[in-house]
This record gives sequence, structure tokens and C-alpha cells, in this order.
Amino acid sequence: MKIVRRIGDVEHADGLVPTMGALHDGHRALFRAARAENDVVVASLFVNPSQFNEQSDLAAYPRDEARDAAIAEEEGVDVLFAPSVDEIYPAGFGTWVDVGDAGAEGTARPGHFRGVATVCLKLFNIVQPRRAYFGQKDAQQAAVLRRLVRDLNLSVQIRVLPTVRDADGLALSSRNSLLSPEERARALALPQALARGAETFSHGGDAVAATQAALDGLSNDYVELVEIDGATVLAGAVRVGSTRLIDNVILKGALY
Amino acid sequence: MKIVRRIGDVEHADGLVPTMGALHDGHRALFRAARAENDVVVASLFVNPSQFNEQSDLAAYPRDEARDAAIAEEEGVDVLFAPSVDEIYPAGFGTWVDVGDAGAEGTARPGHFRGVATVCLKLFNIVQPRRAYFGQKDAQQAAVLRRLVRDLNLSVQIRVLPTVRDADGLALSSRNSLLSPEERARALALPQALARGAETFSHGGDAVAATQAALDGLSNDYVELVEIDGATVLAGAVRVGSTRLIDNVILKGALY
Repeated sequence: MKIVRRIGDVEHADGLVPTMGALHDGHRALFRAARAENDVVVASLFVNPSQFNEQSDLAAYPRDEARDAAIAEEEGVDVLFAPSVDEIYPAGFGTWVDVGDAGAEGTARPGHFRGVATVCLKLFNIVQPRRAYFGQKDAQQAAVLRRLVRDLNLSVQIRVLPTVRDADGLALSSRNSLLSPEERARALALPQALARGAETFSHGGDAVAATQAALDGLSNDYVELVEIDGATVLAGAVRVGSTRLIDNVILKGALY
Repeated sequence: MKIVRRIGDVEHADGLVPTMGALHDGHRALFRAARAENDVVVASLFVNPSQFNEQSDLAAYPRDEARDAAIAEEEGVDVLFAPSVDEIYPAGFGTWVDVGDAGAEGTARPGHFRGVATVCLKLFNIVQPRRAYFGQKDAQQAAVLRRLVRDLNLSVQIRVLPTVRDADGLALSSRNSLLSPEERARALALPQALARGAETFSHGGDAVAATQAALDGLSNDYVELVEIDGATVLAGAVRVGSTRLIDNVILKGALY
């Protein structure tokens, strides 16, 4: 696997997996899908400052490039693009992509999806992939990127892969490493509440209300229904101590 | 020449000339340069509503597709892409590109360069050209598009061709057809004042002040110095009756 730090050294590839590092089994699933479906796979490793609406969150975000590079190589990534912040946002940078109406996650994190859309558009232009891979856990992000692709006439396909979970049901997230053991236990209420919401929905009930009622005291930024290309997703965001976690389940249709 | 109305029917081409129609000899110069430098030339013909900050300006903008198509064909354009508004901005469209700090023209026309940047990015993605052609008369637009290309890592080259003028010095513009004969005569003060500014600059004087002093009573939105990739451009915008005209001259360096 080649590690590349300059935009000009990145080769075009048919598969792209954008990441912010702190890789876990959810990323491994993206790498494996990309490996299976493409001749050349580029993964990017870039903690994108512009998508953090809280500086403390950016500062706390876990970073371990050597470990991440080893995981990417194990999973068959051909090129790891790990640029500096100045390489992506040089002096004088000033062009931003706004994707309107980004739902509750967009409202809860002002500027977040502007940062996501802008850096992903840059990565798409740099790598020119046929397919780019994202996890279903960030369902609203996938919706934003599909809208970006449609509205700006990009030719990349946004592939969305199922959320990978620990045995007890907690969605894998780079932020899980920030949880204390006690917080880790309390965080389980999120997937459990979403499962309760999905069950309620299957019986014709109010999925959002059922989820909120089952959150077991976790403070939630939102619980909402998100429509993504015909699929209906029940999504929630909670705070466990100082860590913010998101998760979702599909109620109708499919993401792929 | 083929006329195409659907995005899906546009072929990739190495040369692109985006226009809003009402073609004049300035456009012909762009078509000729594109014809000389590329195997396949696509021209677009689209009066882009999102770049008009005044609805009356949009309504008054001259339109004559049959005449425009004949000119494009004469100049060797291979494909004329003439989409409907709904084809470019379908229901649900909501993604916009903001290019920060677009100078006095950006301040004078709120939202204008957002509309220009967004539609040009869409055209670049649809046609995937190696080179796109613009006139120097819209110098600030060229600066915005070069910034768009740089910031978003696009691979298209923004070619800027010299302003084409009538024999008396008035820059060709689709909006000139809106001038009465009396207004046409008064409009000449703009290129004459810019020439005075350039002469003053060459003697070490204040180009902006000299231009403003020579505008002969025309009301000006602004007169300013614009830096574009190392070139210094003296640019002005005036109102002649209800018509707004812009023009500029290069003081230092070159656009190409």
C-alpha cells in the first residue's frame, strides 16, 4: 500500500473510501466492499476540521495513523491518501458547498454538512472514483452526499453499507473509545430505543415517540424519520457524558 | 451541429463554451479559440436564473435560440446544449456553491456569483472538459471560476480571451441591445474612463480615482482593482438608463 500526502500524487481510482481515521470494523467492511468491487481502491485519512462544529470535539477526535495504515493495508487498500490540513485547505481557500435542508443532524450541528459536502466533493474531484463508500450509521450524511451527487451532476455512486455493531448492539464509532465503561453501558440505550421504535413502527405505532420514551434518561439532540432515496430511516443522536453518539435503523426500504 | 436538451444526452468533450445566448462577436471569438484548441467543442445556451439578482434583468435578457444556434454552427461548435430550467434545476434542487470574497461585482449583485459558480460546476461535471472559455469582460467571473477550480480541485483550465469591442471601443455585451441610441452614446464613457484610468496608472497615478472622474456623469456601482492570478485589472460597472454594463482593462500582467 502506498501512502500519499500530496493531492498531485493521488492517482485516479474507481473505488474511494473517505475516512477520518480511528478505523474500526465498520471501516473494514467499507474497505472490503470497495476491494471486492473495484480494481484500484483509494482510502483517505483526514480529520476534516471544517465538519466539526465544536472545537473540543475536533481536539478530542482520536488519531493513530500507524494503526490506521496497518488496518487499511490488511484490507487491501492500494493507496492511502493522508494529507495535511494545509494541503486540503491552503491559504486563501474560500469555496464551500451548501446542501440545503440536511435534516435534524444538520440543524444540530451547524456547518457540519457544509464541511462534509465540501471535503467529499474535493475528494471526488481528486480521485474521480466510480464508487464511494459510506456507512449507514451516518445515514443523514449519505442522504446529503446523494443529494450533492444528483444536484451537481457528479458521476460517482454513493454506496451505503450496513452499520457494524458490537455483540451487544452498540454501533461501532470512532467516538466509542472516548466512553468510560459506565458511559459505554448507558450508551446501549440508544440502539435499544431505536429497536423499540422500529418494533412499534411495525405495529403501526409512533416510532419517534416510542424511541424517545425508551432512551432511559439519555439526553437526545433529536429522534427523527429521515427519507433517503425511498427508504425510511429512524435516526437519533444522544449525549453520553461529553460524547455525542448517533445511530439509526431502517424502517422501510433499503440503502445500498 | 447537434442540439441537445437533456443532460444524459450530452457527450464528454475537451472544449466547453458556456453562454447565456444572445451571441455576439465576443462569443464567436470564444468558439473560434475552442475550435482551434479542442477535438470536440460543446457550447451551452442557458439563461441561468440563479445568477440574476434582479427579476427584471432576467425577464429583459434577450433570447433568440434559432439565431444563436446558427452562429454556433457557423463557428464550428459540435454540440449545442440548450436545456430547460427544469433540466438544470429540477424539483428538490438545493445544492449551491459559495465562492467567498467575490469583490465589488459580488457585493453589487448578491447571489450572482453563487449562481454562476453553481451552474458552471454543473456544466463542468456534465461535459468534463479540459478547457472552458470565458471573456475578459467578465473578469471577476473568471477570477471566481479560477478560484472554484483551485479550491475544489477541478481539472478544467479556465481560458480567458480578450474583450471584443465595437469600433468605437464599447465592449460587446448581450445587454447592449437594450440601449437606446442616446444611451449607446453615453455608454462610451465607460471604456473611455477605463482607458483614462489605465493611462493614469501608467504614470504612477490613482487609476480608480481617474476612472471615476472621467465617467462623465454615469452612475457607477463600483470602480475597483481586481487581482486575478497575478494580473491587475481595473474594472467598473455603470448604469445607463435601466441597463447595467461592466467593462475592464488590464493594468499589469496578462489573462489567458
